[in-house]
Amino acid sequence: MSITRTAATFAPPVMEARRWLQGVKFPENRPLINVSQAAPVDPPPAALRKAMADFAMTEDSAHLYGPVLGNDELRAELARQISSHYHASVEARQVAITSGCNQAFAAAISAITGEGDEVILPTPWYFNHKMWLDMAGVRAVDLRTGDDLLPDPEKARGLITERTRAIALVTPNNPGGVEYPAELVRAFYDLAKETGLKLLVDETYRDFDSRDGAPHDLFQQPDWDETLVHLYSFSKSYRLTGHRVGALATNPALLAEIEKFLDTVAICPGQIGQHAALWGMRNLSQWLAGERAEILDRRAAISEGVGALEDRGWKLLGLGAYFAYLEHPFDMPSDELARRLVADAGVLLLPGTMFMPENDPEGQRQVRIAFANLDRAGIGQLFERLAALAF
Amino acid sequence: MSITRTAATFAPPVMEARRWLQGVKFPENRPLINVSQAAPVDPPPAALRKAMADFAMTEDSAHLYGPVLGNDELRAELARQISSHYHASVEARQVAITSGCNQAFAAAISAITGEGDEVILPTPWYFNHKMWLDMAGVRAVDLRTGDDLLPDPEKARGLITERTRAIALVTPNNPGGVEYPAELVRAFYDLAKETGLKLLVDETYRDFDSRDGAPHDLFQQPDWDETLVHLYSFSKSYRLTGHRVGALATNPALLAEIEKFLDTVAICPGQIGQHAALWGMRNLSQWLAGERAEILDRRAAISEGVGALEDRGWKLLGLGAYFAYLEHPFDMPSDELARRLVADAGVLLLPGTMFMPENDPEGQRQVRIAFANLDRAGIGQLFERLAALAF
Repeated sequence: MSITRTAATFAPPVMEARRWLQGVKFPENRPLINVSQAAPVDPPPAALRKAMADFAMTEDSAHLYGPVLGNDELRAELARQISSHYHASVEARQVAITSGCNQAFAAAISAITGEGDEVILPTPWYFNHKMWLDMAGVRAVDLRTGDDLLPDPEKARGLITERTRAIALVTPNNPGGVEYPAELVRAFYDLAKETGLKLLVDETYRDFDSRDGAPHDLFQQPDWDETLVHLYSFSKSYRLTGHRVGALATNPALLAEIEKFLDTVAICPGQIGQHAALWGMRNLSQWLAGERAEILDRRAAISEGVGALEDRGWKLLGLGAYFAYLEHPFDMPSDELARRLVADAGVLLLPGTMFMPENDPEGQRQVRIAFANLDRAGIGQLFERLAALAF
Repeated sequence: MSITRTAATFAPPVMEARRWLQGVKFPENRPLINVSQAAPVDPPPAALRKAMADFAMTEDSAHLYGPVLGNDELRAELARQISSHYHASVEARQVAITSGCNQAFAAAISAITGEGDEVILPTPWYFNHKMWLDMAGVRAVDLRTGDDLLPDPEKARGLITERTRAIALVTPNNPGGVEYPAELVRAFYDLAKETGLKLLVDETYRDFDSRDGAPHDLFQQPDWDETLVHLYSFSKSYRLTGHRVGALATNPALLAEIEKFLDTVAICPGQIGQHAALWGMRNLSQWLAGERAEILDRRAAISEGVGALEDRGWKLLGLGAYFAYLEHPFDMPSDELARRLVADAGVLLLPGTMFMPENDPEGQRQVRIAFANLDRAGIGQLFERLAALAF
């Protein structure tokens, strides 16, 4: 009896965490602080909402099937913006739109791997990457990062076998928050190119990077699209999580393979989301700069306030994008801690166990805080509650 | 070297057919008749468009992540409507929303099968079902239908092996158009139940069935959800193809497995599409009845006019839902015929080769006409053009 694809993986962490809330009452003077999901809780700015509404009212195409790989105009605009951001020359035919960035990853993996192949993932990993590899029959090969949460290309080299097809990075990292240095990303690219692998680089949080300018030089390499599969999301930047719009950039032949997958699981990305992404890129660059500044200020608040936690034995392992990744001081596995935090502290966060191989001792000592929705006051309250814990 | 998942299947037929149009000029007095895709070309009614626009403007939730299995209200409303349509008692927890009906199929297969398993598909099949099975590493076992395009349960029984996990039906059928008799669907259900298989029934075209009332009695069977996986789409009924909203109904434990897949490839269905589906179900039942009457009238026009084609050696094999499925009289494979029809007749349709195993001689003699977008005059013109062909 074969095991089904879904039986090969675990339940969605965010949904599981939501279930921990069931039946728990949060007093009015201590409402829940939900730092479990990496998603803006505010809607897009009013002008973008109006652009979507107008589009729905006036354009027939808002409601009809479009091309599998996304609308031409959106592909062209994203190619222009990638070219500008990375000081490179990327063409529309090297870009495709997907129904969210998770789908971009799934589609790329389906075009790159077959049953029994291997993909190298730095740990802690992004759980949906691990889940898709499990369901695709691909072995996720665990590349353990150091105390700085940065993966080592030479260590990765040692993990390559004849079944390895790709290395998948996330920078700025989810869950770790760390921004991979340009030279590190480049070293992985060189390794992948040398060994004939694909390098997937998920840059969902690109627009919240603390570094100005291009975060790496991969798009400037000759024939970059033979090695690189760049993944991007419009969800965080323009607050479009409910519309499912992501993207990828790679070579057109691989996109033709990816088109088979996208046609079969999605047919096309949603039209209103595509319109919103296009409108956002064209009209919201200043607004987005402000969003980034706000996230960076919240990040600074965490840096400034974390000392109070460190006095209690916590340790900040990584910080950036939407995330702080911490080691907790308690003598209990992080999944038990996370569950107890709901009632005991009114805090919902995800335990490190959700980002690590099963029974991994490091995962049991770590937690992820998705802080993007907490202002300075909220961050202060969160740290107070955590610092007050005594188990 | 393993074969990649996407290399195991063929290019998306609808996109391939669109490429045949490139560079072809259609004279003003003989514009293209496009009967290739089963999709409304008109947008939803104005009131529904306004409901979507209002939702985008006023509801924050229109733009935020929702539950992986769809919004509670929509699941509840669909459960009510299924219960009413099939005279049964279906609960919200037995229903999930997906980003289109293709995704519902992919998710269900991923929860039911593993590498090397088998699923029985009547031929001609719906190509995206075949494509997903190819990519999932599942063998599509070809259940040849008779001249009436109806599959035979006893023939299916003979194809069951220890690797068989499911039988997947489409009724009303795509591409064949035929409406499977209630007793036939029931016989497949009984077979699946007896042999421990799942029965997938894709009812995307349910709302255009020429029969009044419930098209089968499966939802009335005790423990129906242990055997049946019902698939549905809002795309055709409410003209929401550009919003990607589908659904499935089965047992909650299987939905929990399906949730893993949906979380990883979609995170959640688009919010505006879900709102539109809910609004449509609540407010457009009379409008939908009119749509159905119009489709049934077009179907009647095909019945009435097909004689002129039959005089030329064509044969109508199936008719219903959005489709007429025909045998052509020419001494050339249907994919060559379809390509020549673009320039020679200004007609874009899909060849039977796209719905059949490779090199199948029957597929080479068949074509599918998706007639939903042609009014009586358009159907007349289409038949004139086809009747005038001489190769």
